[in-house]
Amino acid sequence: MAKEISRMLLIIPEIKELLSQNRKDELKDLFYEYEPVEVAEALKEFTLKDRVILFSLCDIDFAADIFEKMDKDNQLTLLGAIDERRKSDILDELAPDERVDLFEEMPEEMVARFLDIMEKEKARDARELLKYEPSTAGGRMTTDFAQVQEGLTVEETLGNLRKTAKGLEMVYYVYVLDKDNKLVGVVSLKDLILAEPKERINKVMHTKLITIPVDMDQETVAEEIAKYDFMALPVVDNGKMKGIITVDDVIDVIREENTEDMYKFGAAGRHRENYMSMKPSFIAKHRVLYLTIFVLMDFFSGMILKNYSFALNSVVALAFFIPLLMDTGGNAGTQAASVMVRGLATGEVRIKDIWNVVRKEFIIGIMIGVVLGLIALIRALILQKNPGVTLTVGLTMIVTVTIATCLGSFLPIVFKRLGFDPALISGPLITTIVDITCLIIYFEIAIHLLGIV
Amino acid sequence: MAKEISRMLLIIPEIKELLSQNRKDELKDLFYEYEPVEVAEALKEFTLKDRVILFSLCDIDFAADIFEKMDKDNQLTLLGAIDERRKSDILDELAPDERVDLFEEMPEEMVARFLDIMEKEKARDARELLKYEPSTAGGRMTTDFAQVQEGLTVEETLGNLRKTAKGLEMVYYVYVLDKDNKLVGVVSLKDLILAEPKERINKVMHTKLITIPVDMDQETVAEEIAKYDFMALPVVDNGKMKGIITVDDVIDVIREENTEDMYKFGAAGRHRENYMSMKPSFIAKHRVLYLTIFVLMDFFSGMILKNYSFALNSVVALAFFIPLLMDTGGNAGTQAASVMVRGLATGEVRIKDIWNVVRKEFIIGIMIGVVLGLIALIRALILQKNPGVTLTVGLTMIVTVTIATCLGSFLPIVFKRLGFDPALISGPLITTIVDITCLIIYFEIAIHLLGIV
Repeated sequence: MAKEISRMLLIIPEIKELLSQNRKDELKDLFYEYEPVEVAEALKEFTLKDRVILFSLCDIDFAADIFEKMDKDNQLTLLGAIDERRKSDILDELAPDERVDLFEEMPEEMVARFLDIMEKEKARDARELLKYEPSTAGGRMTTDFAQVQEGLTVEETLGNLRKTAKGLEMVYYVYVLDKDNKLVGVVSLKDLILAEPKERINKVMHTKLITIPVDMDQETVAEEIAKYDFMALPVVDNGKMKGIITVDDVIDVIREENTEDMYKFGAAGRHRENYMSMKPSFIAKHRVLYLTIFVLMDFFSGMILKNYSFALNSVVALAFFIPLLMDTGGNAGTQAASVMVRGLATGEVRIKDIWNVVRKEFIIGIMIGVVLGLIALIRALILQKNPGVTLTVGLTMIVTVTIATCLGSFLPIVFKRLGFDPALISGPLITTIVDITCLIIYFEIAIHLLGIV
Repeated sequence: MAKEISRMLLIIPEIKELLSQNRKDELKDLFYEYEPVEVAEALKEFTLKDRVILFSLCDIDFAADIFEKMDKDNQLTLLGAIDERRKSDILDELAPDERVDLFEEMPEEMVARFLDIMEKEKARDARELLKYEPSTAGGRMTTDFAQVQEGLTVEETLGNLRKTAKGLEMVYYVYVLDKDNKLVGVVSLKDLILAEPKERINKVMHTKLITIPVDMDQETVAEEIAKYDFMALPVVDNGKMKGIITVDDVIDVIREENTEDMYKFGAAGRHRENYMSMKPSFIAKHRVLYLTIFVLMDFFSGMILKNYSFALNSVVALAFFIPLLMDTGGNAGTQAASVMVRGLATGEVRIKDIWNVVRKEFIIGIMIGVVLGLIALIRALILQKNPGVTLTVGLTMIVTVTIATCLGSFLPIVFKRLGFDPALISGPLITTIVDITCLIIYFEIAIHLLGIV
């Protein structure tokens, strides 16, 4: 996608030079000129031993920021290599949601060991977060947010905020809670600096709240935040404020969901952290599962051909056009399915639109079918002088493309209606279904048109 | 994707009731209880006449917020229906980037007419923004941002901000400019409230700046913002500050790009505003273009079959397995291509990984090929007693799947390397290429194994 020019990668030789001369202070100063994500990227270029040395140069809060920007594999490797003291410091310093994401990748005994060496309060917090499903609002949220008790003034709120802001990722919304920790309002930092200092916070705060239930699916959460253009939304459980989900979490969710959809649509199985670090056997296992299903479905195509072998025996030329017709049918079906899977994902197409969509795709299918049918007809004329075969190929093209287009749009909506992911109607699945249909149509038209008995 | 329960859709009957009784004040109060995006959604359920009445109830700033949340088609329809005075007010009130997005959908004369009725300064601003390509940073940015001249104190900066904040979408970053409008630093509102009031802004501001050049492609911009987790990044032209791009713009870009990728991967042509409002003929035109290319490619498959017709004549049973082998090859290629297209889009896979990827996919291909080859062999044994045909099918499966997997991973990387979009290696394209390859392999193995001459 992007051509990212990482500024820090350009100075790797300089870092190596300084490292070999053990000039640690200069290295530290150099590191602080970059963003955490850049340092995390640059560290990948060093051996584990050097990585540990470089990482330990940074103060704990900067180190934690860098750590949060590493991918899971690198995080685990690094944690395994640094000493216990620094390990517990890093874990304490991580944002609560990042910490839990990391824990979710570890074996349970390892998590238990880490929880033991962490600060009491933070360990309790982590245990709480670990209870939620990773793909729900609870599993995604962070418990660090700016809060204030109702009844304070604007001035007091700002004073409170000054005391707590430093450790918080998101200070631009301050959540107003009552004595029972129930969320009663939200006030933005913009509202606060615009308001009269002596004004009560309850006068300034917004009370028409958009809240996220703790068990909401992350995909829906992403939709909600994207829809309202807020930078964060509060997560509540029975009205009690539990945490917040910020817009940058949403970007991660959207990406993950899109990756998942693309894998599903390609019938490519499950996606994990990173393609390059997935084992071939893991990938092969997932892909072969889907392919086997399609192979089993394709056994029908063999049976159909065997059934119609008398027609093939009588007019061998019929075989020449099987690949053309099958491919085109499958391709037209894939086109319609890709449009529909994406349309359902973005909300452009809704379940109730099903008949409008099918009607539309029927018209599209006929238009495409007629054009391609004519091309196929001309082609058949050149390849084969038999006018019956020629006409059979042209007609089959029209009928197959129309059916393929309708099926490709219809099936994803039906899947969604039944509660499945529409992306499961993958290109390969629709191709396989359409191919079988195509063969039957082809031979039926041939038998009638050519008078084969 | 999401099951959005739109709160406002539930009270449509109530709104209709109030509207029929002309109780405008109550309607207005009711509207103000919802977010602009909810009102925009609800308005869709009314006739244009009612929509104009309801829309005109709202004060101009709320109305503009609602307007920004409508889709382009609805915006244009509504603009056509409201009176000139309100039209110019709405246009003046829109965020600069939203306004220009709208203008880009209009015919030039219409834009010129609108520019005439707008405030002078805003019209100049819009003309400036219209110069940039819509898909670049310049075309995406907004020119409303919080700014301050260098040399002021924290207190003075906050004072300035209080005066300008109301009209700004993003006040959480304040950009520090020198006399020539060059960007010299950025300070967050968090920094400002934490700093000493008398401190100079130049002491507090961050100077290690991540900036976006005005002509950067929107996809790269989205990557940059997502990478750094900032809520906005400054757009500069020769060091001069031109505007900002905010994180919610990024979400829109990511969505658009993902839609584009999915359409490309499905070989489905161009995507416009909304599937439901695209004309069938527009859709058909785009799809038929791709399909025609594949049909022309498939003419080779016809020629290949004709060339090998002596083999088909001699062993008709060979035809039974053509659909199975072609489908499976195409499917395996689609799997690998979908993984690669997505991996290249997210940056998981880089061009320099090409040989690692192909080696990996070669191993995966052999693993999958052997499993499916065995299944195909068993199937061929059942369908056909001829051991030669059986072996031919099994071997072809192994070879085809391995080649398909390698091609499916190799071609997207090559396309990226050549500067094309890897998503152009669509499922249908890879299927068509693999199918042709598959036929040649199949017949060559058959001729040698069955001794056909």
